[in-house]
Amino acid sequence: MIGHAAVNLDRLEADLDALAEFREPGHEGWTRRVFSDAYVRSREWLTETMREAGLDVRRDAAGNLIGTRAGMSPALVTGSHTDSVADGGRFDGPLGVLAAIEVARCIREGGIELRHELRVVDFLGEEPNEFGMSCVGSRAIAANLTRDHLALRDASGRTLAEAITTAGGDPDHINQAAWPAGGVHAFVELHIEQGPILEGTDTPVGIVSGIAGIERMQLTFEGEAGHAGTTPMGARHDALAAAAEAVLAIERVASRGDGVGTVGRIEARPGALNVIPGHVELWAELRHTSKEWLDASRASLEADVDAIDKRRGVKAQVNILSRTDPVLCSDDVRAAMSEALRQLRLRSSTLPSGAGHDTVQMARLGPVGMLFVPSVGGRSHCPEELTLPAHLEAGTAALLATLLVLDRR
Amino acid sequence: MIGHAAVNLDRLEADLDALAEFREPGHEGWTRRVFSDAYVRSREWLTETMREAGLDVRRDAAGNLIGTRAGMSPALVTGSHTDSVADGGRFDGPLGVLAAIEVARCIREGGIELRHELRVVDFLGEEPNEFGMSCVGSRAIAANLTRDHLALRDASGRTLAEAITTAGGDPDHINQAAWPAGGVHAFVELHIEQGPILEGTDTPVGIVSGIAGIERMQLTFEGEAGHAGTTPMGARHDALAAAAEAVLAIERVASRGDGVGTVGRIEARPGALNVIPGHVELWAELRHTSKEWLDASRASLEADVDAIDKRRGVKAQVNILSRTDPVLCSDDVRAAMSEALRQLRLRSSTLPSGAGHDTVQMARLGPVGMLFVPSVGGRSHCPEELTLPAHLEAGTAALLATLLVLDRR
Repeated sequence: MIGHAAVNLDRLEADLDALAEFREPGHEGWTRRVFSDAYVRSREWLTETMREAGLDVRRDAAGNLIGTRAGMSPALVTGSHTDSVADGGRFDGPLGVLAAIEVARCIREGGIELRHELRVVDFLGEEPNEFGMSCVGSRAIAANLTRDHLALRDASGRTLAEAITTAGGDPDHINQAAWPAGGVHAFVELHIEQGPILEGTDTPVGIVSGIAGIERMQLTFEGEAGHAGTTPMGARHDALAAAAEAVLAIERVASRGDGVGTVGRIEARPGALNVIPGHVELWAELRHTSKEWLDASRASLEADVDAIDKRRGVKAQVNILSRTDPVLCSDDVRAAMSEALRQLRLRSSTLPSGAGHDTVQMARLGPVGMLFVPSVGGRSHCPEELTLPAHLEAGTAALLATLLVLDRR
Repeated sequence: MIGHAAVNLDRLEADLDALAEFREPGHEGWTRRVFSDAYVRSREWLTETMREAGLDVRRDAAGNLIGTRAGMSPALVTGSHTDSVADGGRFDGPLGVLAAIEVARCIREGGIELRHELRVVDFLGEEPNEFGMSCVGSRAIAANLTRDHLALRDASGRTLAEAITTAGGDPDHINQAAWPAGGVHAFVELHIEQGPILEGTDTPVGIVSGIAGIERMQLTFEGEAGHAGTTPMGARHDALAAAAEAVLAIERVASRGDGVGTVGRIEARPGALNVIPGHVELWAELRHTSKEWLDASRASLEADVDAIDKRRGVKAQVNILSRTDPVLCSDDVRAAMSEALRQLRLRSSTLPSGAGHDTVQMARLGPVGMLFVPSVGGRSHCPEELTLPAHLEAGTAALLATLLVLDRR
């Protein structure tokens, strides 16, 4: 059995620091967006770091970086992403890649013979990008990146295919990036929680039960613009007041059970101080690991919006923008995690992931699981994003031990 | 006594049509903003129209057009403005100027000897302009246009003083535009209601009780931005949800009594679909003809916002942007209006003005009053703005009769 001690925290932290140095100028925090010069350069460093860990490294047609240690098929797969959001942090993504490399080093140094091939993946572009997509690389591996996706253009007119080429990919042969069915023994991703639950309960490692499905919608409110001084309150069809009720309805609906709901964006027109808003749009989302909760909550919200429409004489509409089904983590992988954490005498708890991850795509190929480590203050996607050293070490040890348990199953 | 019949509706409508022809290209409706080429040209036509009505016309240092018919001091004054908002209508402003000219024609044709000098004023730039001001001309007449006002700049860097020069004014001698104390016997402005009250009660003429004071404020909500997927509902400090409660609080507060309250503009940051808004700003106003109502409503709103702050852990603040005190119309002028409407056998009702007008400035110089005529559908500041011919005629007859009653007092 490989214990906690096998993981070299100093080495992991040095890698995190080294990767963090690759960042885009003119931005706060640690900005390394997919396809940026900083991102492209950082992956040269990453390739070298994988090689030094004894991995055979290749870049696939989608621009994923894949380091392998030989073994039998199906492969034991782990990894995450090294791109960040603008003005982001140092841990969302990099931890899962660099911990996987540290795990490969521990296996080599420990002289451990894995039965299965070990595959460490740095998935290309997990964060939302300028093409309006996320999880580009893991989609390609899961045979879920289409010609339509590749033809998407950013604001400069460049296609996603052209951008993938700059990242060392070969989009003309994108199908070659897809992995064959049955090729994955298990996929495990270590990630920061990006929320306050583990920190709040002083738990070093979380086992993810599932990854929330996301229902994204746009709500429009068509009232009647009017003079703010001369239109009596009783004669108004104020689109902003109607939208305000909807914002609170989404909060109320999402607070039932343990889902979340957010209105992230609002636009009110005409937007003049002395004119009653005639047209308002909201962009909102609901997230939960249960499809039933999502369906029931959306229906409840639609009923609320309908009541607002009727009561206020403001034409209100809910337009669904996208639906992503929840992904449940594999019971087998979760059981392996529990066993590994018992071996390590690490306390853990089970929690859902509200954020999407490459794991969602990998679930198309085989059993998946995720390990979470605490985020200080629950902060993420900001320069203050932080996971304490003890938790970096615990999470990496848990990843190593989980992979060893899974290897023997 | 001069009755209803003395007003020539065809002539008035021809003038409204002729003035409406002066408009800015590339805009919907009837756009004739102050300082635009269309505005400057329209006032050449207006000068000629005043002259043809037998008035002596001069342009003062503020660019106001003033037509006089000789008589003793203090003067009987009437008028309004001929500038419009962008994409506005044909009646807001022009009616009060062109009806005043029609009144002058009726007086001349009727051979009526007024005791007082009659002064017909086309006030420069009543609508909010690119310098962030309104009522430019009437402010100057009321000695309320300062050097600071004249130094205001529009987006192109031009000063208000420079703009007034293009409108034929002489801003270096702006003080010469101010009228001496005691020079106004009474000021009466005919205007469209811009609201639905008169139409809703089928009343042809309204006597304005007072002009609402306006309390303008900016509300800021400083919460905590966070990941929309990973921050549990109970751990959020959602600035947009807090602001939504404030939007509804303003509506609720304003609905007590017969005031109005409006949130015309909202901005939420960062404004991404998957990020809880951390910072929201609202721009709002309260209006009422009672200063007590304004004070009590603002205090009530501040208490509501304070409760939102405490309950949600979102730092909320109400910043007062500007305060305009209500103006009460003169009892004497209102009594003269009632007498005039009795003579004309026209039904009337009394109502407040929610919109600001040049009358607010003129109240600094003497007793003031306003007559309202119905707006179809209560619409204003839009191309659909409409007052029916019968109401144009009734309003103009009421203006004439009111001035005659006031002249004899």
